[in-house]
Amino acid sequence: MDYLKIIEDELKTYFPRGKERNSLIEKCLIDSMEYSLEAGGKRIRPTLVILFSKAFGGSVNAALPFACGIEMIHTYSLIHDDLPCMDDDDLRRGKPSNHKVFGEDIALLAGDALLTNAFSAMLSEKAVSLVGADKAARCAKIMADYAGMYGMIGGQVIDLLSEHKSVSVDVLKDMHLKKTGALIKSACAMGAVVGGASEEEIAHAVSYGENLGLAFQIMDDILDVTSTEKELGKPIGSDKENEKSTFVKLLGLDKCRSLVNEYTDKAIKALDCLRGDTKELKDIAVKMSERKN
Amino acid sequence: MDYLKIIEDELKTYFPRGKERNSLIEKCLIDSMEYSLEAGGKRIRPTLVILFSKAFGGSVNAALPFACGIEMIHTYSLIHDDLPCMDDDDLRRGKPSNHKVFGEDIALLAGDALLTNAFSAMLSEKAVSLVGADKAARCAKIMADYAGMYGMIGGQVIDLLSEHKSVSVDVLKDMHLKKTGALIKSACAMGAVVGGASEEEIAHAVSYGENLGLAFQIMDDILDVTSTEKELGKPIGSDKENEKSTFVKLLGLDKCRSLVNEYTDKAIKALDCLRGDTKELKDIAVKMSERKN
Repeated sequence: MDYLKIIEDELKTYFPRGKERNSLIEKCLIDSMEYSLEAGGKRIRPTLVILFSKAFGGSVNAALPFACGIEMIHTYSLIHDDLPCMDDDDLRRGKPSNHKVFGEDIALLAGDALLTNAFSAMLSEKAVSLVGADKAARCAKIMADYAGMYGMIGGQVIDLLSEHKSVSVDVLKDMHLKKTGALIKSACAMGAVVGGASEEEIAHAVSYGENLGLAFQIMDDILDVTSTEKELGKPIGSDKENEKSTFVKLLGLDKCRSLVNEYTDKAIKALDCLRGDTKELKDIAVKMSERKN
Repeated sequence: MDYLKIIEDELKTYFPRGKERNSLIEKCLIDSMEYSLEAGGKRIRPTLVILFSKAFGGSVNAALPFACGIEMIHTYSLIHDDLPCMDDDDLRRGKPSNHKVFGEDIALLAGDALLTNAFSAMLSEKAVSLVGADKAARCAKIMADYAGMYGMIGGQVIDLLSEHKSVSVDVLKDMHLKKTGALIKSACAMGAVVGGASEEEIAHAVSYGENLGLAFQIMDDILDVTSTEKELGKPIGSDKENEKSTFVKLLGLDKCRSLVNEYTDKAIKALDCLRGDTKELKDIAVKMSERKN
């Protein structure tokens, strides 16, 4: 099923369109927010929200506000990550990064607005009427916790403090579990909540997300040294250039390849504990372990 | 009643203390978040949440998660506002601004984390058990809407786009209604929701907030030209130096003083429509119109 189109159509509903976009704010801030939001990517996180909702008998529709919320939060984190005071990246997904087009000030605010209005989406009247206030509040709390100081942002801090240093595999793993893994876990947990999963089932969904996230990150490190700029849509070898610790540097390519398989297997195993149709979730894990970009 | 101490004690409960603060994240990110959170200020916004909750018969306790949430969001906005790519301010409340102490990268992330974890606070198990999921979700939605692209952040965008330009009083008013006014309105609305106000009463609470916010901002512009750096805790004349449009520049001091009185009266009048004890809310409006810093 083409979730990509459903997600992208739904994302558009949160912003005024075309001629309606008249005010100063809309011409500048919202253009900037949509520039990055529409820059694509694989929409893995919103797809996971939808698939976990479906696996527990929830609808695609009920999952959409949370799917859009997490994509807004993922996008804000990329905009802020690219800023000169952070990674100072000029390119993102093959296009000039947000601050290169809109300036640093607007890019900063566009990130802030995507983060803030993600919660407007997840707690909208529509969201509450679809899933009830209990589940909407629970999902938004899960999102905030996983995206916040002990989740994604915590991971970015460990990343900053580890630069130009060799770190242990444990620190690197902890960093990635937070920096990339937290949002993926959040997607799985929110989808499970929307679908009506039990606490035990939510924990299995999170375990799938954690292992998928690790496999995803190790693949990223592998592709940074084995892919081409054209295939990847971003400069390769950037980890080496930025003197970043990577799994490949610490463990070598062969060990990394076997770890990707190991974590992929663990992710798939976590699905065995779930009732409902998890075929698409299995496919995602397998596809992730074989991806070229 | 000393709400200041209650608010500051409650804010501390959201972060690990003393010896518990061991990890990399805690030593760096959370130190930075608390540095700005503890830098004080008048805690107007959280106080308004508490007082509106009380006015409608709600408890101080039930208002606290939302009071802390809005103070975290106010604090994040100050940290991001001071960054070099924004106002580039070295001082905030008489102390070096966050990025001067912790660096731009950590300051950016501390702001992001305060914004994110404000929603953790407002949707915490404690918050939900105190007010129910319906009210907690409604408050967090109000907060996100007023802080987001059409609220505070929208106001910051208008501010950025108006720099080095002379703008009309209408644009200036719209900018401040969003930039400063939105959070104040959000505080009043959240407090009213927590206290169990009707939709009409919530609208009156918002009207109080809107007028209080305008009076507050015009006083700010007045103090920028009439106060001293010592009294204000920040450099005076900074609006002129930054070539910012102000109410004083556009309308003169006398007209501004009469506008402060007018908006203060309107704020107090909005309270007349409310049941419950609104004496402390009246006092705040009067004190605001007479403040020296």
